[in-house]
Amino acid sequence: MAVPAPTPADKFSFGLWTVGWTAADPFGAPTRPALDVVEAVERLAERGAWGLTFHDDDLFGFAPERAHRDRQIARLREACAATGMTVPMITTNLFSHPVFKDGGFTSNDRTVRRLALRKVLHNVELAAELGARTFVLWGGREGSEYDSAKDVRAALDRYREAMDLLCGHVLEQGHDIRFAIEPKPNEPRGDILLPTVGHALAFVERLAHPELVGVNPEVGHEQMAGLNMTHGVAQALWAGKLFHIDLNGQRGIKYDQDLVFGHGDLLNAFSLVDLLESAGYDGPRHFDYKPSRTEDRRGVWDSAAANMRTYLLLRERAAAFRADPEVVAALEEAGVPALSEPTLDAGETVADLLADPALDAVDPDALGRRGYGFVRLHQLACEHLAGAR
Amino acid sequence: MAVPAPTPADKFSFGLWTVGWTAADPFGAPTRPALDVVEAVERLAERGAWGLTFHDDDLFGFAPERAHRDRQIARLREACAATGMTVPMITTNLFSHPVFKDGGFTSNDRTVRRLALRKVLHNVELAAELGARTFVLWGGREGSEYDSAKDVRAALDRYREAMDLLCGHVLEQGHDIRFAIEPKPNEPRGDILLPTVGHALAFVERLAHPELVGVNPEVGHEQMAGLNMTHGVAQALWAGKLFHIDLNGQRGIKYDQDLVFGHGDLLNAFSLVDLLESAGYDGPRHFDYKPSRTEDRRGVWDSAAANMRTYLLLRERAAAFRADPEVVAALEEAGVPALSEPTLDAGETVADLLADPALDAVDPDALGRRGYGFVRLHQLACEHLAGAR
Amino acid sequence: MAVPAPTPADKFSFGLWTVGWTAADPFGAPTRPALDVVEAVERLAERGAWGLTFHDDDLFGFAPERAHRDRQIARLREACAATGMTVPMITTNLFSHPVFKDGGFTSNDRTVRRLALRKVLHNVELAAELGARTFVLWGGREGSEYDSAKDVRAALDRYREAMDLLCGHVLEQGHDIRFAIEPKPNEPRGDILLPTVGHALAFVERLAHPELVGVNPEVGHEQMAGLNMTHGVAQALWAGKLFHIDLNGQRGIKYDQDLVFGHGDLLNAFSLVDLLESAGYDGPRHFDYKPSRTEDRRGVWDSAAANMRTYLLLRERAAAFRADPEVVAALEEAGVPALSEPTLDAGETVADLLADPALDAVDPDALGRRGYGFVRLHQLACEHLAGAR
Amino acid sequence: MAVPAPTPADKFSFGLWTVGWTAADPFGAPTRPALDVVEAVERLAERGAWGLTFHDDDLFGFAPERAHRDRQIARLREACAATGMTVPMITTNLFSHPVFKDGGFTSNDRTVRRLALRKVLHNVELAAELGARTFVLWGGREGSEYDSAKDVRAALDRYREAMDLLCGHVLEQGHDIRFAIEPKPNEPRGDILLPTVGHALAFVERLAHPELVGVNPEVGHEQMAGLNMTHGVAQALWAGKLFHIDLNGQRGIKYDQDLVFGHGDLLNAFSLVDLLESAGYDGPRHFDYKPSRTEDRRGVWDSAAANMRTYLLLRERAAAFRADPEVVAALEEAGVPALSEPTLDAGETVADLLADPALDAVDPDALGRRGYGFVRLHQLACEHLAGAR
Repeated sequence: MAVPAPTPADKFSFGLWTVGWTAADPFGAPTRPALDVVEAVERLAERGAWGLTFHDDDLFGFAPERAHRDRQIARLREACAATGMTVPMITTNLFSHPVFKDGGFTSNDRTVRRLALRKVLHNVELAAELGARTFVLWGGREGSEYDSAKDVRAALDRYREAMDLLCGHVLEQGHDIRFAIEPKPNEPRGDILLPTVGHALAFVERLAHPELVGVNPEVGHEQMAGLNMTHGVAQALWAGKLFHIDLNGQRGIKYDQDLVFGHGDLLNAFSLVDLLESAGYDGPRHFDYKPSRTEDRRGVWDSAAANMRTYLLLRERAAAFRADPEVVAALEEAGVPALSEPTLDAGETVADLLADPALDAVDPDALGRRGYGFVRLHQLACEHLAGAR
Repeated sequence: MAVPAPTPADKFSFGLWTVGWTAADPFGAPTRPALDVVEAVERLAERGAWGLTFHDDDLFGFAPERAHRDRQIARLREACAATGMTVPMITTNLFSHPVFKDGGFTSNDRTVRRLALRKVLHNVELAAELGARTFVLWGGREGSEYDSAKDVRAALDRYREAMDLLCGHVLEQGHDIRFAIEPKPNEPRGDILLPTVGHALAFVERLAHPELVGVNPEVGHEQMAGLNMTHGVAQALWAGKLFHIDLNGQRGIKYDQDLVFGHGDLLNAFSLVDLLESAGYDGPRHFDYKPSRTEDRRGVWDSAAANMRTYLLLRERAAAFRADPEVVAALEEAGVPALSEPTLDAGETVADLLADPALDAVDPDALGRRGYGFVRLHQLACEHLAGAR
Repeated sequence: MAVPAPTPADKFSFGLWTVGWTAADPFGAPTRPALDVVEAVERLAERGAWGLTFHDDDLFGFAPERAHRDRQIARLREACAATGMTVPMITTNLFSHPVFKDGGFTSNDRTVRRLALRKVLHNVELAAELGARTFVLWGGREGSEYDSAKDVRAALDRYREAMDLLCGHVLEQGHDIRFAIEPKPNEPRGDILLPTVGHALAFVERLAHPELVGVNPEVGHEQMAGLNMTHGVAQALWAGKLFHIDLNGQRGIKYDQDLVFGHGDLLNAFSLVDLLESAGYDGPRHFDYKPSRTEDRRGVWDSAAANMRTYLLLRERAAAFRADPEVVAALEEAGVPALSEPTLDAGETVADLLADPALDAVDPDALGRRGYGFVRLHQLACEHLAGAR
Repeated sequence: MAVPAPTPADKFSFGLWTVGWTAADPFGAPTRPALDVVEAVERLAERGAWGLTFHDDDLFGFAPERAHRDRQIARLREACAATGMTVPMITTNLFSHPVFKDGGFTSNDRTVRRLALRKVLHNVELAAELGARTFVLWGGREGSEYDSAKDVRAALDRYREAMDLLCGHVLEQGHDIRFAIEPKPNEPRGDILLPTVGHALAFVERLAHPELVGVNPEVGHEQMAGLNMTHGVAQALWAGKLFHIDLNGQRGIKYDQDLVFGHGDLLNAFSLVDLLESAGYDGPRHFDYKPSRTEDRRGVWDSAAANMRTYLLLRERAAAFRADPEVVAALEEAGVPALSEPTLDAGETVADLLADPALDAVDPDALGRRGYGFVRLHQLACEHLAGAR
């Protein structure tokens, strides 16, 4: 099978901090030099990507001189203009500088919280300038290691206060920007607030402008809690809240690996692509990964290409899976389409249900012997993934 | 220190299936005989418990003869009357009979879904009769092992349909009953729908009558996803949704252990009790545990008592912790109370914040050197827990 | 690609308890009737399997009448004779009966330990009679939930005492039987002794007859500890101790799932098959899985076939991966074959190494910039697995 | 209860990299300045510590100028002489410099392997000079992220080659030094070789001089694999291989937290201290932890003191637990001491066991009803830990 080459129509985007990662980790020094933003744009564009995203600090550092900041933004704009690349999303770094060591919006220190808000507000303006329509918030330092060190209810109050301020500002300014909260269970904090897609979705409902805020699930972050990424994304879609997505790879419950998409739980990556494509998700396919520390610059670009290639390969495999008559029959036998039928008849009441003679006639033991054929269905999925059908 | 003896004022309740567990597990046969409900009520009452809870099947089996069902209910009522015990919560078993092997409300088989709804409706009526004000729903079979075998968005539609029907019924009947969804990430299904407190809270917001539905977090279930139970409960409290709670013990991410409360992550149990007591939670303290398979009947009752004793011991320890002036000072130093101050001044606007000269004057590097003293605070918590202060 | 059909030459074996699992789990009743051993042999033979394995209790129950036991053994022999199936391995159930609730060889009760030894001795004789050359020992109940309840050093003494007795017996009787210890980290006990391949390998070295005892790693058991099955098997091979292997599937750190081989971490399954085939392992490919509880009898046999088909598919894919010149070049670039070269020259001493002028001339910073191309290599593996090359 | 103050007799030691950690993590910059070694020695001595340990790079950096190296060593010696502190252990950093990004002893690059060996050899000489009797080897970079990128069997050959060289050198030089391998399952590599205490113990048995090599288990490293630290240490003691120990805290399966000892699974810390003290372990109690990134210098020293204080507190609690007659009776009832009785009588043969009439008379069902009282025993442990007895 020929895997198609990526094109901007595929809406593949990359964080500047991904291909630009210099590969310092908790136990080791950087192994690669810094990457200039213009080179990032050009190399990604050559490989068929569509967008570049960034934190403020990635582009111009923390508390930059005005001239440096402006120049970096200009250089990015020019590179985008020259290559056709876009900036679909921007985000703010509230985690690297020591001042945020206890968090940004929910730091126990009020001055820090105020600095954090200001930093994000500045970056929202930049997003508006650059035409980015999604603003991601990863609250990686919002949390604690020790239960008594953080009053979680107060922290959620402060988180809400911040979100309400940001939403009010965007509405007031008339920016066409929506926010996407990125959950993560832990690392770098022992426990991070809003640890999963579910917690973030629930939080959004308590905001003043919930319509402006959705989620940005990341494959590895959900899997770090042992959760099924495809299930989490499905619940986000169900709630109308999948505003953005971070694709990468993770091999189970451990430190955040940020592998290439598919280089972890490949079966779950397959079902995720199947879901995104079949649900009509039309936002960015954003890769938030890290080229392994063992790689040089060539390895960086190979890994960038691998993300896109795997996505497209899985998209082909998923389409073939859905089109296979044997799969269609197995889905039918498994009752998968039948789950879309309402459980009650139109207009049926509780009284009707309780009195239904057809239900009285059911023998639960006999019904309990029904085979669903789930294993065979999954084997079909595995074989389609393996290109063996 | 003398640990106080449990009294009904402590609102300790136990599932009939807990002390009544006959100790079959995936690899072994039962090691204990069945326990009669009257004995359960009497023994628990003697030990200071306040309530007994049950699944329909626990009390009278699946699809019981009418007479047997009535007799069992009557015996329970009598035992309660004789002992002063209450039935604060009821729940329905939608997981043991083979008919529910692919779920109840979200089974791929529509007839199963209808049977499930009917079974729950019958039990809601029983709850109303017995004066139970909380109805727990643990959807342990709602889920899948294989991603293509379950259309999660359709499943959530069916879950919502079921909840809306139940809420509508309760409203129509005027029952003083609220529902509490109990999340669990996996086991017995590979992935269970609404896997964490967060997912359940988010789901509730999409219901027709969200005010009637809250959550029933279980210590072990959250910890099976590596999540912080105290954080999850805090978010539920923050959302006004802590309708019930299941206390037990778990030693990390593995199979569901259902140990005695405190017999797992003792430090997290300490902070959980601290939270429940300080937040004014006044619902049941419900123990959903299993006496280990190695225990005989005497071990069962010892373990029941251990749950209550540990709760009361931790309550004492938490009170002493909060009262200790050294702790108060450490909390202050750590900025814990300061997190309750709004980040913005009253009436402050975005423009005000951006222009704040005091903020301009802040040196982030200097502020980043602030020490929070979190480790010392936690050491104080450990020492209070250990009775060493 | 056509996946070849399984044949006895592939040495695929199944536990009688796998296809025969009646699908009771901790939260639900059986969903399938018992399976007769003769039907198991016939159905597996039809599908190309080579061997059937069993626990004593699987075939004739706990403490059977002599006549029943003999008859069941005779029926098994006849079915094997009629189909060409073999019994390559036998094992003893020391975990289901309540008497073993605190373990067999390491129960705190000495009488239980003696019963356990006797039960195993009887089954070793049966293994010898049936020509089984491997005797597996899974000590699923050897362990504890509570740290003070088990003196682990004493338990290891008793474990060793048991193994030494068994080995001595086999030597004395001249049986051609080797023992294989199957590690598991937890479930049904909170912590099981010899929790990983490593712990079991280390234990073996302290026995009186280490040459008679190896390991039986199970995919899911290693993955329940977050460990890499392929790495564990490689260490067992390196130690000359891979006496048997249990193939199945697991989706991360959670309860023991016993899915079909490949239906969990497919990439790790690929590398495992690659290792087994390239290392010349010629023992049984034993499937220790459970057909999901949602399946009927047809689903059972579909799932049995799926195990073998996946293995053969991965074997084809691994062969193509190894034969691909691009892969060979990528392995070379990654230095994989170079790891087989000794680090020292032949005859080189410490003094030589310390004085080596070539090493003096090395610039570590420059050498640290070498790219290994690991990501590209892994992408090639993913694409071969996916049949896209 | 008064917790005793630490004294050198308690043999508490700290890594220079622990109190000296500047608190950079994967997502953030350092929050504290570097710590001079003399200050480290003085502050630790003041607090009652006995020893300081270090990696070569901690003291004088990677590839230092000779004069700088000598001066740093001299300053350390002087500080030790002035304070009475010792250097009981040294270790080599084979993980921070980029050259080691694919490992040291098992790098796919032979030149790297040779550099690694030379670096360790130099440091072994330094250990001998300083009188350190234990040399720890943590092979944190020995491993892989991708299964095909590392030939594990070849890697173990190289690991063994390195260890044999080191042992041969120590023997030849007559140094009074033993090696202790420190296992870790992952981080910074996706999978690290010798991932648990078990794997390391097994590896040691294949070395040329196994008597010179033991293990250095770390609390957090074992718990990152969901394993029971106390069980792992017990197996190491059983094998005569507990040459050193790293005490710290970890809250479950996640990134490596390196919390203060006891600030994670407190119950397991209790049983670990109980084991070390009752088993007569007389080596260093070495704290390998990191003062949280939120702490300033004062927090660093508070956290150092907290480690020692917690150990001493748990030692007191464990002693009281063992001395309590109620505990002694509960242990007896649980059969804990009975596990030390051999299963066979002195001189008993297999034939004797099979023929034992007393065993014939045992009713397994009746014996299966024995209650072990494990839950009550554990409750006693919890209450002793909590100072409530």
